[in-house]
Amino acid sequence: MLDSWHDGPTKSAIVEFVAAAVDAVEPEERIAVFDNDGTLWCEKPAYIQLDFLVRRIAEQVVADPSLGVNQPYTAAAAGDLAWFGDAVTKHYNGDDSDLKLLAGAVLSANATITTEEHAARVHAFFADATHPSLGRAYTACGYAPMVELLRYLESFGFTNYIVSGGGRDFMRPVTTTMYGIPPERVIGSSVGLIFANGELLTTAQPEFLNDGPVKPVRIWGRVGRRPILAVGNSNGDIEMLQYTAAGPGPSLAMLVSHDDADREFAYTAGAEKALDHAEKFGWTRASMRDDWRTVFSG
Amino acid sequence: MLDSWHDGPTKSAIVEFVAAAVDAVEPEERIAVFDNDGTLWCEKPAYIQLDFLVRRIAEQVVADPSLGVNQPYTAAAAGDLAWFGDAVTKHYNGDDSDLKLLAGAVLSANATITTEEHAARVHAFFADATHPSLGRAYTACGYAPMVELLRYLESFGFTNYIVSGGGRDFMRPVTTTMYGIPPERVIGSSVGLIFANGELLTTAQPEFLNDGPVKPVRIWGRVGRRPILAVGNSNGDIEMLQYTAAGPGPSLAMLVSHDDADREFAYTAGAEKALDHAEKFGWTRASMRDDWRTVFSG
Repeated sequence: MLDSWHDGPTKSAIVEFVAAAVDAVEPEERIAVFDNDGTLWCEKPAYIQLDFLVRRIAEQVVADPSLGVNQPYTAAAAGDLAWFGDAVTKHYNGDDSDLKLLAGAVLSANATITTEEHAARVHAFFADATHPSLGRAYTACGYAPMVELLRYLESFGFTNYIVSGGGRDFMRPVTTTMYGIPPERVIGSSVGLIFANGELLTTAQPEFLNDGPVKPVRIWGRVGRRPILAVGNSNGDIEMLQYTAAGPGPSLAMLVSHDDADREFAYTAGAEKALDHAEKFGWTRASMRDDWRTVFSG
Repeated sequence: MLDSWHDGPTKSAIVEFVAAAVDAVEPEERIAVFDNDGTLWCEKPAYIQLDFLVRRIAEQVVADPSLGVNQPYTAAAAGDLAWFGDAVTKHYNGDDSDLKLLAGAVLSANATITTEEHAARVHAFFADATHPSLGRAYTACGYAPMVELLRYLESFGFTNYIVSGGGRDFMRPVTTTMYGIPPERVIGSSVGLIFANGELLTTAQPEFLNDGPVKPVRIWGRVGRRPILAVGNSNGDIEMLQYTAAGPGPSLAMLVSHDDADREFAYTAGAEKALDHAEKFGWTRASMRDDWRTVFSG
């Protein structure tokens, strides 16, 4: 088992933690939580969900060309992805103007449709969208060693949840086939829904931004138990890992390091504080380059 | 099976629905949702949670007697439960003043403790609190035919959830032993939590009031699937039953009727609109008097 992991301290830490958990923790309390972007699937050069949203925004311009005079509709219609990256860069430089335009467009991009219609749009996206540089379908951009870890944990009675800043209803249509994690175990960001005439309709109002300290709050809200294993890769995962590590019994807090420019990407931006915490508190590091025999399957 | 249900149209409706669901619906989509107060356990003469809260408020007066000069602390310390009933009556007569006092006290009654400490308070309450007129522990106030229905559904591959206006973290400590429903399948009202130093702390801020149209929204948020069976007993369950009944395949929407003054209570207050909907849309009615051979077990 765990054949796609090289032997070494990381694999040993996993195996030893699982053995300790099986000894000390009742099966129903063997809860494992996983971030998604950058932890279970690739998040570079951009979040997969951003591609979904930009395509949808471009569709909106086709349906209503008058939208195209304003950003981010102009950029989306022109396929100018740099504008989206620049919006985030400007935000980090203290200028939120473009990010606000982007947020409004993103929130309203899939508003006022039923949850079933939204799921159909997501399915349609994944049916033909491919990663811009890896040359594989997005549905094949999950990390094989992580999927193997999910199965390994299940074989020891663990229950796995996704706890992601990504959209709950963007992930759900593919998590069962990609990860074997069903919709009821996907915790993510969401827009508000309203109930009308027997149906649930999306709105353009933000509900949860499932990141940072919100992650442990929503784990409790959904699960009612403290996880004993948590895996993340960025600053937004710190509190989820702290919550897990602060439990009374055996626990494992693990960070995936993106240090493999040959097979995936090499970056630490957005993970600086998380890496500091890992160092300071002895969290386990999973190096894509050194610990993973393969990155993707197939 | 279903031995605590009398033969008749209600039991037949259940059995026939389950047979149809097994034929037409994949196991993972066999989602059943149950209200709690008045559906799975007794809600008269007052919500069980109100007893928990009034005892806690009285404890607060013992710890800080200066609180006792104001309501609802005065009433709680004196064991004057009529004040609490009157607060609700005044609310229905257009005077919210006492209800606002009550809400503030209720929200802050268990604030700023960890979720584990909160669970310990709930366990301590259920360990010795008894129903004021039925002469049985609250933990023995679950309806035997409903518990039997939960097991019956599970035997056909259903997954059961509680979807209650009651407090999520008030129910969770007892739902596994009373109903065989684990914490991760309890959806209820909640106060906000904050994350600090590795722990989750309760606040006095309301988060969800899980009632009416909020129920289907939160079912989707938690489960990501539309239920095919829903059971409730009051106006706050209408939208959950509508959502269930509006699905594309077999569904069963059922209301429990409290019409058994001898064995439990007889009342329709708070269920008037739900009973109208049941009549109009052909929802199944479960009469406590006519359909249940027993009400409580043991």
